[in-house]
Amino acid sequence: MMCDMSSYNAKSMVEFLRIVGKLKTLKRTGWVRSQVALPESDADHMHRAAICAMLIPSTLPDGTRVDRDRCIRMALTHDVCEAIAGDFTPECSITKEEKHIKEREAMEEIRRILEDNPVGDELMDLWREYESGETIESRFVKDIDKFEMILQADEYEQDQGLSLDQFFDSTKGYFKTSLFLSLDSELRTQRALRKSSSD
Amino acid sequence: MMCDMSSYNAKSMVEFLRIVGKLKTLKRTGWVRSQVALPESDADHMHRAAICAMLIPSTLPDGTRVDRDRCIRMALTHDVCEAIAGDFTPECSITKEEKHIKEREAMEEIRRILEDNPVGDELMDLWREYESGETIESRFVKDIDKFEMILQADEYEQDQGLSLDQFFDSTKGYFKTSLFLSLDSELRTQRALRKSSSD
Repeated sequence: MMCDMSSYNAKSMVEFLRIVGKLKTLKRTGWVRSQVALPESDADHMHRAAICAMLIPSTLPDGTRVDRDRCIRMALTHDVCEAIAGDFTPECSITKEEKHIKEREAMEEIRRILEDNPVGDELMDLWREYESGETIESRFVKDIDKFEMILQADEYEQDQGLSLDQFFDSTKGYFKTSLFLSLDSELRTQRALRKSSSD
Repeated sequence: MMCDMSSYNAKSMVEFLRIVGKLKTLKRTGWVRSQVALPESDADHMHRAAICAMLIPSTLPDGTRVDRDRCIRMALTHDVCEAIAGDFTPECSITKEEKHIKEREAMEEIRRILEDNPVGDELMDLWREYESGETIESRFVKDIDKFEMILQADEYEQDQGLSLDQFFDSTKGYFKTSLFLSLDSELRTQRALRKSSSD
């Protein structure tokens, strides 16, 4: 397909990128609630999430193919809706359904801003696939979302002398892919050793 | 190729991801020098850089094919070396060659940490290609690196009432790809309008 994206509206792309830029100053609500000092941004989280996706294998032991680049794009954009909708956690007084509606409206707003640029549809497709969790790629990215969070929790515990048990408790038994089952197990082992040696 | 990455050393992957996490608190030197309050992190910059790469066309008007997913991976990782080497700017008292050597050593350290995981070689390849700037993919990512910077400069000017002319002056005439020539032109037009209306 011949496709010169530079012909798409530059103004609409700049507007889109300005919205994405808001993710740099949006502090993750979970850390704010837990009194973490200078908590990471949504963009920080999605950056390492996308790097986690680079570790995904292209083929699983049972022969299942995984589209690693799609996982990278999904990890990179899974919370982009929060630039407009905000970051809700299970503790926020909003139902899962209300959160989903607000996020879908945000994705629709982003698609509207991008006008006829196909990246608008692509972002909507990636977000829908992530939310439904039905494909192998979305199952990997859901594991990444939680693993990146507990790795960060472990780092805040070490750097700031906090106890962030709730993040480890809420993700116990969550992981479904063998890669992140293995990384989760390694991280919990490291944390248990650290805690026992500091007793 | 059958390839089960979960069989790679989990300890080495966690160590690698902890290094990548340092990019969340590494403040970009250019902003620190310019007295920007609460400047973005290296991870923030690479996150929006990778989103910029999603806007790259798969085929140019002259028929040249562009590997967009490779651009996304390159944008996502082009400054990962700074987690170990630090962030040097042209104003730092270090030559370009010394900077390159320090960054190459950092990439070698990352490859060593990742042991036999092929992502270590992949990161080194992406960094080398970016540094050499010889492929169409690396030329796009070099444009992205500068465009993302001036878009951020424009946002800091608006949010913090600063004048960051030096970032616009140093990148004038820099852009080579038609997409980022077009986005650069749009951004400079918006900035000029804003400046003239505030006179």
